[in-house]
Amino acid sequence: MPRPERNVLVCLNTRPAGNPKGSCGEKGSEALFGQLKALVRERGLEGRVLVSRTNCLKHCSRGPVLVVHPDNVWYGGVRSEDLDELCRSHLEQGRAVERLLMPDIPWE
Amino acid sequence: MPRPERNVLVCLNTRPAGNPKGSCGEKGSEALFGQLKALVRERGLEGRVLVSRTNCLKHCSRGPVLVVHPDNVWYGGVRSEDLDELCRSHLEQGRAVERLLMPDIPWE
Repeated sequence: MPRPERNVLVCLNTRPAGNPKGSCGEKGSEALFGQLKALVRERGLEGRVLVSRTNCLKHCSRGPVLVVHPDNVWYGGVRSEDLDELCRSHLEQGRAVERLLMPDIPWE
Repeated sequence: MPRPERNVLVCLNTRPAGNPKGSCGEKGSEALFGQLKALVRERGLEGRVLVSRTNCLKHCSRGPVLVVHPDNVWYGGVRSEDLDELCRSHLEQGRAVERLLMPDIPWE
């Protein structure tokens, strides 16, 4: 793969159940990561988009957290049913999905 | 942490010794990750720069691989002694370190 057009990060950090911070892993990010990779493959985006798993992305209460680079767009509370729109709108057409943007980030 | 100004990815993928592809982990990326995090902290960049560990970034033979987003700048063969320049030049002043750029990527 050459340098990808887009690199999607999925936080896979996990904390023990009951930890007050919560974690993306606890909220299903492992499954999300697998689903997103499969979707990218299905849609023929594999050469353009690299999906990467990361450690904690520091917005645990808003998890699962996904980041799309190089746009530096941060998404929170992403669910399986959002991935299709995320692929279609952001990864294929370059339009961020506004309703999923992390609410506590200044998007000036 | 708000949305970071820069997000540095460090590939921590490891393959068994002797695997023909090699891996970043085998070439010391775990230590590199720790050193870069410490350096970012020492230089007071912690609020602006997030250092993340990832799975395979697909340029195993050029490892250790580091990516600086949102610049989408890919570095290969990074060693401990390069981290200071990388922090100073790229993370503080926004100038990529040309001698470390991944050689097999078209940088048009």
